[in-house]
Amino acid sequence: MAIKLFKNANIYTPIDKGSPSAGKEQNLLKNFPKGGIVVKDGVITAIGNIDDIEKPYRIDNTIDCKGQSLIPGFVDPHTHICFAKLRESEFEMRLKGVPYLEILNQGGGILSSVEAVAKASEESLYQNSLKHALSAMKFGTTTIEIKSGYGLDTENELKMLRVIDRIAKTTPLDVVATFLGAHAIPLAYKDNPDAFIAIVVDEMLPAVKSQNIASHCDIFCEKGVFSIEQGRKVLEAAKRLGFKVKIHADEVNDLGGAALAAELCAISADHLLAASDSNIEKMARAKVVATLLPSTAYSLRKSYARAKVMIEKNVPVALATDCNPGSSYCESMQFVIGLAVLNMGMTPAEALVGATLNSAYAIGVADRVGSLDVGKQADFILIDGESPAMVAYHAGVSSISAVFKRGENIFFNKV
Amino acid sequence: MAIKLFKNANIYTPIDKGSPSAGKEQNLLKNFPKGGIVVKDGVITAIGNIDDIEKPYRIDNTIDCKGQSLIPGFVDPHTHICFAKLRESEFEMRLKGVPYLEILNQGGGILSSVEAVAKASEESLYQNSLKHALSAMKFGTTTIEIKSGYGLDTENELKMLRVIDRIAKTTPLDVVATFLGAHAIPLAYKDNPDAFIAIVVDEMLPAVKSQNIASHCDIFCEKGVFSIEQGRKVLEAAKRLGFKVKIHADEVNDLGGAALAAELCAISADHLLAASDSNIEKMARAKVVATLLPSTAYSLRKSYARAKVMIEKNVPVALATDCNPGSSYCESMQFVIGLAVLNMGMTPAEALVGATLNSAYAIGVADRVGSLDVGKQADFILIDGESPAMVAYHAGVSSISAVFKRGENIFFNKV
Repeated sequence: MAIKLFKNANIYTPIDKGSPSAGKEQNLLKNFPKGGIVVKDGVITAIGNIDDIEKPYRIDNTIDCKGQSLIPGFVDPHTHICFAKLRESEFEMRLKGVPYLEILNQGGGILSSVEAVAKASEESLYQNSLKHALSAMKFGTTTIEIKSGYGLDTENELKMLRVIDRIAKTTPLDVVATFLGAHAIPLAYKDNPDAFIAIVVDEMLPAVKSQNIASHCDIFCEKGVFSIEQGRKVLEAAKRLGFKVKIHADEVNDLGGAALAAELCAISADHLLAASDSNIEKMARAKVVATLLPSTAYSLRKSYARAKVMIEKNVPVALATDCNPGSSYCESMQFVIGLAVLNMGMTPAEALVGATLNSAYAIGVADRVGSLDVGKQADFILIDGESPAMVAYHAGVSSISAVFKRGENIFFNKV
Repeated sequence: MAIKLFKNANIYTPIDKGSPSAGKEQNLLKNFPKGGIVVKDGVITAIGNIDDIEKPYRIDNTIDCKGQSLIPGFVDPHTHICFAKLRESEFEMRLKGVPYLEILNQGGGILSSVEAVAKASEESLYQNSLKHALSAMKFGTTTIEIKSGYGLDTENELKMLRVIDRIAKTTPLDVVATFLGAHAIPLAYKDNPDAFIAIVVDEMLPAVKSQNIASHCDIFCEKGVFSIEQGRKVLEAAKRLGFKVKIHADEVNDLGGAALAAELCAISADHLLAASDSNIEKMARAKVVATLLPSTAYSLRKSYARAKVMIEKNVPVALATDCNPGSSYCESMQFVIGLAVLNMGMTPAEALVGATLNSAYAIGVADRVGSLDVGKQADFILIDGESPAMVAYHAGVSSISAVFKRGENIFFNKV
């Protein structure tokens, strides 16, 4: 395979010490102002100051980065981009102050996405999902987690997971598939959610496992959705089958989802707008990544999760778009970083680590992506600016000039 | 000239009754769900339901809008995109909590942009400005106001205005040029701002007038910048020379800029974060447009201007990016609309009227742009969604599929 040299780059990367960056370490980046990267077979074989790395190699192809900033590709660790239909009218209802329960009664909410997935052909579901995956890529995402959860029965959950698998096979993105069968209570089980949980555990999880079509399992614990006890049941069953587990935790109410994540040594707990100090401390002790979703808070006009408190308490913070047609129609990790910096008080370095290394840990792929290190994939972005702060500074506008996946240029932003 | 038909469009447009839309009227849009527009010589000659408008014309060229939403091109009525250099490091200092005065002392702030413009060649200043103008266009702006104000002496103010004129002549955009000689107190006049004001009035304004290179005059009234009395002096002199006048008013302190705008019947007063209720009422009586700049509040992490109070008090509200390298590095009117809806509580309709018709009134061009009416220019945008709410719903991501200026496709967003 050809050996490529990326030269004249102002490289910034998180420092991977074998675990997510927490506390003050989340604010640290390595910088090579006149840096270079040697790539062979899509993998980084050398990185550093250009004079130090170039000589041992017979370079076939040199790419001049012209002094631009070079950072790892974004890892988006929490999305629902596999959906069949937008929910614009629900957005307008919410703006008018219509309560969520009334939106549900008018056929809105998650269950309307479930209905749309059930009706959609696998092909049209794929085309819709593909569109959002490619949009994410243009904003710099090179690795993405995608959840099922608009199926809510075995047939449609598997349909979603097949579509997610097809996204993995037909785009340049690395895709991590998460089974989220327990995303909402289906209407038929309204009065007996335990019976639905039994189906998730006894029927769906084994089916997903036997097809080897998802590596992670997630559940939405919230008032009116699933209880902590139900969460424990599903996630323990998932762990027994070898899934890594994560949890939609404490988004609206402090039910103790963060504590459950700590108890189960979940790979991440997500949302956490209402998580209490003591439960945050439990996450820190169990080294659970806190995956925060600021564009959801923005879109729902809620208070943001307390990122700075979590960082102070040594919880590694990751950032994600939560891209979905209800509460956060946003594919852009750049927008999320902007909100994290300007509305949550994270530093540009903390936000970058949150959007790359810590998010890679949040979905179990930090062995190959999330930082620029020898042996990891050559997934990176060129930013038209002096530093990663450009992403937040250039408000609402993409700062990316090019995206590379395994050393290949997969997007070029013509100015 | 060829006659074009745009068909199968879901048209939404503000209703132009000959004055800016205020109060409840700002929330009104006209909608033709199966609409068409006939364009001749770049001007709208018919608009409405497709069956009503098509017959009288011999159409040369039909464009199928495929059911997408069609809205007027955005009019951005307040920008400083003519600048020579970004100020990323200042952004990072501000995030760290460094006070603005210390940033000034370290060579930041407006005066650093002044220094950069003085050093820049006219060609490089043009290239930089062009880049931002074209970026604005890709986000749907078809008419843009651009201010001078990083010159602060006659030579460099004229240099900026020549560059702005060149942007007008070399891009598809309609450009409105505003002379903002009184944007900051130059260092040499630190202790005698009145002497600088005398130069603005006696030297700069007549020079700009004689070259016929700007139609509007603006001033920055604020503590530490120019007083209301100095504002009155400059704007009255400008009015005598035939300039339309506007004012950077009450951004940080309630100095009475809004009241001065009312007193002088300014075409707009801009910023207004600190404007008092009574001064807002004066603006309503004098029919001054309030031009609000939410991406500046966002970037500076300030409270937003009170858009809903202004609308209740019958002040027509316009929206602008304030694009500049210090307090709002943002070319996207879509981002501004998103903030207006989600952070200022404006409805999607109020925000659209604010970003088109009212912003056209704010810079004196509503006779030809800002709404889709017979006799106005065929400046419009196709939105990939059911309604203009898509712009706010799709957070941080452009919803535009195509931009048309005088009926010509000037940008096509390949998905």
